[in-house]
Amino acid sequence: MKAKIYVTLKKGVLDPQGRAILSSLSHLGIAGVEDVRVGKYMEVRLKDAAPDDARRLLDDACRRLLANTVIEEYRIEIE
Amino acid sequence: MKAKIYVTLKKGVLDPQGRAILSSLSHLGIAGVEDVRVGKYMEVRLKDAAPDDARRLLDDACRRLLANTVIEEYRIEIE
Repeated sequence: MKAKIYVTLKKGVLDPQGRAILSSLSHLGIAGVEDVRVGKYMEVRLKDAAPDDARRLLDDACRRLLANTVIEEYRIEIE
Repeated sequence: MKAKIYVTLKKGVLDPQGRAILSSLSHLGIAGVEDVRVGKYMEVRLKDAAPDDARRLLDDACRRLLANTVIEEYRIEIE
């Protein structure tokens, strides 16, 4: 079974990597981009389990390892 | 207008970050995860444009800045 995890900075948290990309795009002459926010994206393969159990497991993984919940939020999609 | 960009390692390219996460999950006693692949996820805000123009612009941005097309592939979702 597969799942996708998205870890993004919370609203209001400064994203220096996004700012750097925005500035680089402008230097490259790529105009029209107003804002970029960068996050992490993870594709996870799991042992087959009930979707609820899988979600609980990944929630645990996000809180304890994958996301810094002080400044980041995460979203889990079970496929 | 908004778009999402996913940059992931191509199949067959070793993902050391994913391996490290897998190992850490196991050390934390979080069992059941068989594989993790880590990618980048970007939320982009654009000046309003025709979807085709927006896609062309972001495609350009990915090829020239956001993805290393030797080892990475990217996917663009216009909203």
